[in-house]
Amino acid sequence: MSEWQTKQAGERVIQFFVIQDRAVKTASNQSEYMHITLSDASGTLQARLWDVTEKQKEAFQPRMVVKVDGRIEFFRGIRELHIYRIRLATEEDQLSMEQLVPHARRSKDEMWREIIGVIEQVKSPVLSRVLKTVANNRELRDALTSYPASKAYHHAYYAGLLEHMVTLSRAVRALSPVYEVNRDEMLALCILHDAGKVRKFSNAAAPQVTKQGELFGHLILSSDILLEAADEAGISRDHPEIETLRHSILSHYGDVENGWGSPVSGRTREAVLFHYLDQLDSKLSAMSQAAESASDTARGVYVPMLKRNMYAGEDLS
Amino acid sequence: MSEWQTKQAGERVIQFFVIQDRAVKTASNQSEYMHITLSDASGTLQARLWDVTEKQKEAFQPRMVVKVDGRIEFFRGIRELHIYRIRLATEEDQLSMEQLVPHARRSKDEMWREIIGVIEQVKSPVLSRVLKTVANNRELRDALTSYPASKAYHHAYYAGLLEHMVTLSRAVRALSPVYEVNRDEMLALCILHDAGKVRKFSNAAAPQVTKQGELFGHLILSSDILLEAADEAGISRDHPEIETLRHSILSHYGDVENGWGSPVSGRTREAVLFHYLDQLDSKLSAMSQAAESASDTARGVYVPMLKRNMYAGEDLS
Amino acid sequence: MSEWQTKQAGERVIQFFVIQDRAVKTASNQSEYMHITLSDASGTLQARLWDVTEKQKEAFQPRMVVKVDGRIEFFRGIRELHIYRIRLATEEDQLSMEQLVPHARRSKDEMWREIIGVIEQVKSPVLSRVLKTVANNRELRDALTSYPASKAYHHAYYAGLLEHMVTLSRAVRALSPVYEVNRDEMLALCILHDAGKVRKFSNAAAPQVTKQGELFGHLILSSDILLEAADEAGISRDHPEIETLRHSILSHYGDVENGWGSPVSGRTREAVLFHYLDQLDSKLSAMSQAAESASDTARGVYVPMLKRNMYAGEDLS
Amino acid sequence: MSEWQTKQAGERVIQFFVIQDRAVKTASNQSEYMHITLSDASGTLQARLWDVTEKQKEAFQPRMVVKVDGRIEFFRGIRELHIYRIRLATEEDQLSMEQLVPHARRSKDEMWREIIGVIEQVKSPVLSRVLKTVANNRELRDALTSYPASKAYHHAYYAGLLEHMVTLSRAVRALSPVYEVNRDEMLALCILHDAGKVRKFSNAAAPQVTKQGELFGHLILSSDILLEAADEAGISRDHPEIETLRHSILSHYGDVENGWGSPVSGRTREAVLFHYLDQLDSKLSAMSQAAESASDTARGVYVPMLKRNMYAGEDLS
Amino acid sequence: MSEWQTKQAGERVIQFFVIQDRAVKTASNQSEYMHITLSDASGTLQARLWDVTEKQKEAFQPRMVVKVDGRIEFFRGIRELHIYRIRLATEEDQLSMEQLVPHARRSKDEMWREIIGVIEQVKSPVLSRVLKTVANNRELRDALTSYPASKAYHHAYYAGLLEHMVTLSRAVRALSPVYEVNRDEMLALCILHDAGKVRKFSNAAAPQVTKQGELFGHLILSSDILLEAADEAGISRDHPEIETLRHSILSHYGDVENGWGSPVSGRTREAVLFHYLDQLDSKLSAMSQAAESASDTARGVYVPMLKRNMYAGEDLS
Amino acid sequence: MSEWQTKQAGERVIQFFVIQDRAVKTASNQSEYMHITLSDASGTLQARLWDVTEKQKEAFQPRMVVKVDGRIEFFRGIRELHIYRIRLATEEDQLSMEQLVPHARRSKDEMWREIIGVIEQVKSPVLSRVLKTVANNRELRDALTSYPASKAYHHAYYAGLLEHMVTLSRAVRALSPVYEVNRDEMLALCILHDAGKVRKFSNAAAPQVTKQGELFGHLILSSDILLEAADEAGISRDHPEIETLRHSILSHYGDVENGWGSPVSGRTREAVLFHYLDQLDSKLSAMSQAAESASDTARGVYVPMLKRNMYAGEDLS
Repeated sequence: MSEWQTKQAGERVIQFFVIQDRAVKTASNQSEYMHITLSDASGTLQARLWDVTEKQKEAFQPRMVVKVDGRIEFFRGIRELHIYRIRLATEEDQLSMEQLVPHARRSKDEMWREIIGVIEQVKSPVLSRVLKTVANNRELRDALTSYPASKAYHHAYYAGLLEHMVTLSRAVRALSPVYEVNRDEMLALCILHDAGKVRKFSNAAAPQVTKQGELFGHLILSSDILLEAADEAGISRDHPEIETLRHSILSHYGDVENGWGSPVSGRTREAVLFHYLDQLDSKLSAMSQAAESASDTARGVYVPMLKRNMYAGEDLS
Repeated sequence: MSEWQTKQAGERVIQFFVIQDRAVKTASNQSEYMHITLSDASGTLQARLWDVTEKQKEAFQPRMVVKVDGRIEFFRGIRELHIYRIRLATEEDQLSMEQLVPHARRSKDEMWREIIGVIEQVKSPVLSRVLKTVANNRELRDALTSYPASKAYHHAYYAGLLEHMVTLSRAVRALSPVYEVNRDEMLALCILHDAGKVRKFSNAAAPQVTKQGELFGHLILSSDILLEAADEAGISRDHPEIETLRHSILSHYGDVENGWGSPVSGRTREAVLFHYLDQLDSKLSAMSQAAESASDTARGVYVPMLKRNMYAGEDLS
Repeated sequence: MSEWQTKQAGERVIQFFVIQDRAVKTASNQSEYMHITLSDASGTLQARLWDVTEKQKEAFQPRMVVKVDGRIEFFRGIRELHIYRIRLATEEDQLSMEQLVPHARRSKDEMWREIIGVIEQVKSPVLSRVLKTVANNRELRDALTSYPASKAYHHAYYAGLLEHMVTLSRAVRALSPVYEVNRDEMLALCILHDAGKVRKFSNAAAPQVTKQGELFGHLILSSDILLEAADEAGISRDHPEIETLRHSILSHYGDVENGWGSPVSGRTREAVLFHYLDQLDSKLSAMSQAAESASDTARGVYVPMLKRNMYAGEDLS
Repeated sequence: MSEWQTKQAGERVIQFFVIQDRAVKTASNQSEYMHITLSDASGTLQARLWDVTEKQKEAFQPRMVVKVDGRIEFFRGIRELHIYRIRLATEEDQLSMEQLVPHARRSKDEMWREIIGVIEQVKSPVLSRVLKTVANNRELRDALTSYPASKAYHHAYYAGLLEHMVTLSRAVRALSPVYEVNRDEMLALCILHDAGKVRKFSNAAAPQVTKQGELFGHLILSSDILLEAADEAGISRDHPEIETLRHSILSHYGDVENGWGSPVSGRTREAVLFHYLDQLDSKLSAMSQAAESASDTARGVYVPMLKRNMYAGEDLS
Repeated sequence: MSEWQTKQAGERVIQFFVIQDRAVKTASNQSEYMHITLSDASGTLQARLWDVTEKQKEAFQPRMVVKVDGRIEFFRGIRELHIYRIRLATEEDQLSMEQLVPHARRSKDEMWREIIGVIEQVKSPVLSRVLKTVANNRELRDALTSYPASKAYHHAYYAGLLEHMVTLSRAVRALSPVYEVNRDEMLALCILHDAGKVRKFSNAAAPQVTKQGELFGHLILSSDILLEAADEAGISRDHPEIETLRHSILSHYGDVENGWGSPVSGRTREAVLFHYLDQLDSKLSAMSQAAESASDTARGVYVPMLKRNMYAGEDLS
Repeated sequence: MSEWQTKQAGERVIQFFVIQDRAVKTASNQSEYMHITLSDASGTLQARLWDVTEKQKEAFQPRMVVKVDGRIEFFRGIRELHIYRIRLATEEDQLSMEQLVPHARRSKDEMWREIIGVIEQVKSPVLSRVLKTVANNRELRDALTSYPASKAYHHAYYAGLLEHMVTLSRAVRALSPVYEVNRDEMLALCILHDAGKVRKFSNAAAPQVTKQGELFGHLILSSDILLEAADEAGISRDHPEIETLRHSILSHYGDVENGWGSPVSGRTREAVLFHYLDQLDSKLSAMSQAAESASDTARGVYVPMLKRNMYAGEDLS
């Protein structure tokens, strides 16, 4: 929790924030002000910058990091920040995104090392080469290790996608002695099934859905990433292991009839098993995330992904 | 595969069968004959007993085991058995059901020992006592170790319910280091969530849905078994561990809105996780079962529970 | 309608209310105030208690009855009460809940006498004993005669559950000469089908969903009450009349496929008939309730349970 | 039950039947024969007329009544009639349809007198005139008193529509003291809501769906009959009582969202109440009808309208 | 865009508006004011009339046209009009509705001439007479040329219904060489399928749903208009061309199972083809309408009828 | 219609057929025979080859063309062919598939010339190059001009896919003056939206679903063909025209929520318009196809794609 969350009216706040959104409005005295939605790792804060200049209107855009100096006020019981001074962050500020956005519980370096270890366990030469091609692509790797898995529903924070990959790969390794499945394909699925999220979203810190996200959806984008990696690794797109892996990616939203977006229903053991694992991992994450953000005095915790309150152990009556 | 499955027209068959169903019909020459559906571990065979007597009409009822001597004939390309002699099996025949009905891959004794080991791992005194009460109830134990998990969809064979319990408990033990859940409740769920199947079905060998099965369904019947065991073990039905376990049993068919029969949607991590584990275990079993019964020359394998063909690795074109 | 509903700004209000909800907020002058939602039989009123003390913060909790002295103000055209003085009600105030909460049109004593008369008409010794056991249980009787049938949808007021029981039992008695059904089971259903509501809700005046309500839902809780009464009356849970009654309770939300929460679809004439009677009674009540709370000038009446406006006879154009 | 249902192979049958359907086929010896589906009040019987002449091919059409002389044979265990002689019935045969088709339990005259009594109870001059106009229209009356209410689902027999009207009007009269509704509109609904069935079906004895039935459906056809009667009675189609009655007819299949065919959802108490009454009357009839046609030894009774077996009181296991 | 949309706080506005809605409220100083929603062709503006008199309260009703003189103020960043003077418009003001309400892109006279041309192309004497009867009915013609096609979803503006008729008839004429259909029926459908909208809505300028709209829906009302026109033209309602046209009108919402309100599913080529044409015309109109009202800076355009954002060509990221 | 369809029992048939399916069975005299499903352009014929040899069992496989000499027999009123002689067709037989399979009404050469004309009308250099790349790929062109559009539902005959492309492109050219859309993208869609069908099915004459068809579905396969053509034509996959075209291909099954298999809902005018055009073209084709195969005496025509009977103009009663 950041300091500003406990500040009282009139107290001062000086720190870095990410601009989530902003709009210029006209005050009753005819002057213009900018209404800015700021965020840092602990949450979101509304702010006002009075008598905004033309230069400021241009300078401060969504996704930018700014240093702000201001004073807390209360409007209808809600904290607001009235800004005295504001400037863009610079290289010299030496900020890391993990300071500024909500993030996974473990460090991204540690989680990425775990994924590298997973890739090393893949015995199929074909899948191993594909996964290494992805892991060695700097741009992809940077995105895979920083993007959220979704905007709001589950793993909706910095490096949330990576955390989803890590937890799923643990589940797969745990279950592979229990169910007869192609372990290599299952591990590849953990890493690639949602890889398209890095094209669906515009960036890791203030994610918006991109044009490609709107036009294709992440199942198709993940399939694209797989095929591109196969091309780069010199493996035919018709290779049986590529085809069944692609099938499992395309069908991981479950049966076509669900109307969730799978263009094809799962027809292999791997596709069927992975769909349920992905569901349970996403939903348990959604529950954890809701529980963490709930205030102490709350009665039950509402989980948007499940559209209901969770029961957390104490008597609700 | 039994011998009779490869016999040609005119060849003789002498062996034990279970009567699945029978009906008396009138032949064109006005005499009566009995049309009997016989089964053994390898499948189902239609048979005719000509010039059936009143005594035979009374004697041979569904679920009875009979010794049959007859000759194979073909009718429209299908094997039929024309019966010469038939009698009820007796104690002296020293038959075990595992000879006569399709059964799980491992022996029921071996699987039951594994379940006993699972119960011993449960640390909660409350859940431990409940599970031991169930395991020590001779009638329940006999049923839990012999019934199928369903009539046709998944684990639909002798001791299939026990196999479902075993596989699920392995999955739970494998996943419990990955997901923060109450391991004891999860293990208890593996053993109890479908326990009501032993009241839903009439018997292990030729299961029919009982009156209780029709009127209540197995979610309610499993909940009943839990509460009765709690009563017997001297634990209050309002004990928090009993209440959340009962909740997970009642909600293991997933969201109410699915229309599958859960009277309440899962509201705890355990309920949500168990629902998906149960789904994946059932569906992987359904796929295995369909694959095993498919003939060699079949193109793809139809899985009734999933209402589609599975793809099994070779090119379908 | 209470007096406060016609008071103008500045006029004084002194009366008893139930606290529905309250929250402590910080005013722009940094002092704390309590925002309280008050209710009496005629509706809901927002109130503010300025400069709230620590003692007051602790003392005034939801569901408590308080005596309030304050002044009406208007905020954005809405009446608010600014509280001068507030204290908890005491025994000496000799209040009855019917003064303080919206309630059924007939007195609860009169309605309960009608239910007793219904029970006396039940000829089946088994069902008669079960119903008398319920009626003689003081705690259950107090709840059955005071709880609402739902929080908002239908019969959502003090003793609404009892009114639902009464109207349904009249419908059953009226229809039993028309349709061949087991009248005793039908009458028992009127009284018991929603009995679980008294465990689903925390109390009659300011009902919240309880832990049992969240975990089991009222179909299961009604079934529990039936079985407990059978136990107490010394009747086996396997008695055919208990089993079919339990079936009708569990299936009174209609077909499983509806996704409304029945764990089993109705399979008897009584279950099918009762489902539709319950639907029509609930929906006609929801329409009456919406019509009564609608203002005179309203064009059509929105009924939340039906998610549409009702047409009430005059031209809407 | 007719005599033919118990006849053995070789025994003779001479009686009247209705032709339900017929087709000319070529036998293996190249001669033509007619395969005829015959029915009388107790059921349906397949028949063959060998060496059929051109004249016979033209003469014997569906819905015609014929006198048949033939011999019972068994083909694959099913009774068939081999016809010696066949002729069309004539006026002199003095047949009534009630001898020849399955029919309601009470006589149609008795039921029609009850409906006349219902119409006399209607106090609204407008609705009374409309109903009398319908009742006095000879053609309509003949159809309303002889058609089935559906081809297979409920009241699917001669005068089944009339029986449905009678039972519903009893239910309405029984419930009108319980629920505040416009009793006159409710009674008019009982008589008119399904009146369009007489245009949806081609005739009473061997009903086929007509062109109007295919193109409009019976809700629209019932609405048409109402408006035509209003025209004939000199009442404006815009009269408020005609409009709300028409609304209830059009919405009696329930909410538009059901996808059952209501063009508008019920928005009055009468429309909502009538929808549920119609549902319960139809479904209880469907259950009775299925129970009556079930053989003694059947385990449970399958009800096509409800798509499930009913439980009838004895243990199914 | 009207002038008022760019006026700053304090600037004066004098012009005609339509009253969409109004309510009398009490200000904090106890005086009454009227809150009025005004509209003209370019949009909607909130206004306040302080110290409203009893006479004014009666005089200014929804759908009236008023001349207003006032001053722009900003409340929470939203433009409001504080009214100095207000009077009802009179004949002398010589206003046309096209000045006052949002309207179709082409003039209604021009569009109506196109429809007259379409009617002249209809070769079937029956359909030609029906269409001319409708076109020559002054009241109907006035409504058909001024009403919107819906309140908000598509062609939701003055003469929007006429525009829908025009565009559809162009599509039909374009497609009739491609698909073998009855062109005359298709053209008649363009003109009549939504004709009931003129009875569903109360008026063209500030449309509310009428009593008939609530009770019957526009499919039935369009069918009524067809039948009335046939009556007037002396054509039997049972004429095959009238029946199939009526069928296509009643089924133009697609399959019954959709739950959109068709009482019957399309069973002719014309019905099936017209359903899809109507869908695509409505949805393309909805997209145009949303695009036109979107501000320049908007990212994507939300289309309420489609419940999603449209992609308009530029990169969204 | 082929000659064999009118042959009587005992008459001889000598002609070419395609083997659709075959199975070896054992006759009652213990000898083996082959049951073969033959087809030619006019339909399907069951045949028997008695005393089949091992060589014949191997030689005659599905999709092969054979010359058959045999005699018509009737079995239960159905024509069957008893084969005397059978051999595989050879090059010398100089057969064209159009003789042997049901085919589109126009010749494939004529239709392909029309498609070439359409491609020439495309003005966008990008889309023009893509389409020409596809048209010049011999293998693709051969498949696009011979495959059916589906196995049974619509355009389910030789060159049916091509006919679907032709009709759609006519509809697009007809409608493009009416609706403001990108005509080039629309024309490209006509040609490419179902191109994946040539990978979904194994061949044109006796189509089976391929492995790729099972694993990906034709939406994905059409998108693959587009991207491969873009690669070959040297156009970036990220080119805006490629991206929106790909979007329209992926979304042409309509809204994701339909559960028909679109991985993304249409978000451009072109995608929305094309979806409805494709629906109406497919469904009108399905209706034509059903009408053509219906016998003269049929009452109404059942259309499998629409799951209902069509009304064809004459009175059904």
